[in-house]
Amino acid sequence: MSKRRTLITYGTFDLFHVGHVRLLKRIKERGDKLIVAVSTDEFNLLKGKKTIIPFDQRVEIVKAIRYVDKVIPENNWEQKRNDIKKYIVDEFVMGDDWKGKFDDLKDLCDMTYMPRTKDTSTSLKKSLKEITKISTNKLKEAIDTLNQILSDLE
Amino acid sequence: MSKRRTLITYGTFDLFHVGHVRLLKRIKERGDKLIVAVSTDEFNLLKGKKTIIPFDQRVEIVKAIRYVDKVIPENNWEQKRNDIKKYIVDEFVMGDDWKGKFDDLKDLCDMTYMPRTKDTSTSLKKSLKEITKISTNKLKEAIDTLNQILSDLE
Repeated sequence: MSKRRTLITYGTFDLFHVGHVRLLKRIKERGDKLIVAVSTDEFNLLKGKKTIIPFDQRVEIVKAIRYVDKVIPENNWEQKRNDIKKYIVDEFVMGDDWKGKFDDLKDLCDMTYMPRTKDTSTSLKKSLKEITKISTNKLKEAIDTLNQILSDLE
Repeated sequence: MSKRRTLITYGTFDLFHVGHVRLLKRIKERGDKLIVAVSTDEFNLLKGKKTIIPFDQRVEIVKAIRYVDKVIPENNWEQKRNDIKKYIVDEFVMGDDWKGKFDDLKDLCDMTYMPRTKDTSTSLKKSLKEITKISTNKLKEAIDTLNQILSDLE
């Protein structure tokens, strides 16, 4: 019987989108069991990050993804060494936006930084930017009107 | 061998959230094979609905959910009868926001409208409402300033 290969990755998974799905699918293809550590709201605050979706819901969504075998909470930067030992992890995988950041764990397991697909997660960000742009434009219009009236009055 | 029970549901699944996960999970618990029809962007436009996430990505996400066995496109209102026959569907399941709307299909299969869980999908909507409120408030402030200046000038 060949040994099952255990993988681990860490992430926030806020506003779940297709980029998350693709990354999890590609990581799972590298082995047999995928453990995903989802960062808690408290840990995100510590990192200066405020999530839109609360921890419990982010966990529930990641758990529902067919490529994910186990979900654990990520509470702090330091837990990774313990997680790798506890779950007998063979490979630590992150998107290459983290390239080099976790190389100190290479003594415990394989380390892979996967290229992120370029076409992902853009729709949502584009839409939110669009909303912001519209609001900003409306605001600018109001200010322009204000300035126009003021200059007409001078 | 007992017969496998096939279920079908229809939806848009825009901005995928925990309410979607919970509904799909609860539907799947009613049988063995869950078919999900995801509405196309064209069909949504026809309904006067503009989605934020494009069809292909919505499909990709729903396909990644472990409770879902098959995803098909929903192109129009009329296809339901054909889908039920084609896939030999035993039960048609929708959230009870659609209660009574598809009772004409009761001659073909069982019809269930499931109560929606109350605590779902609120975070995202709340956040979007919050953004809208902030923008609106900024706009109101600008208008108030404008009105103040105008009334000072009169």
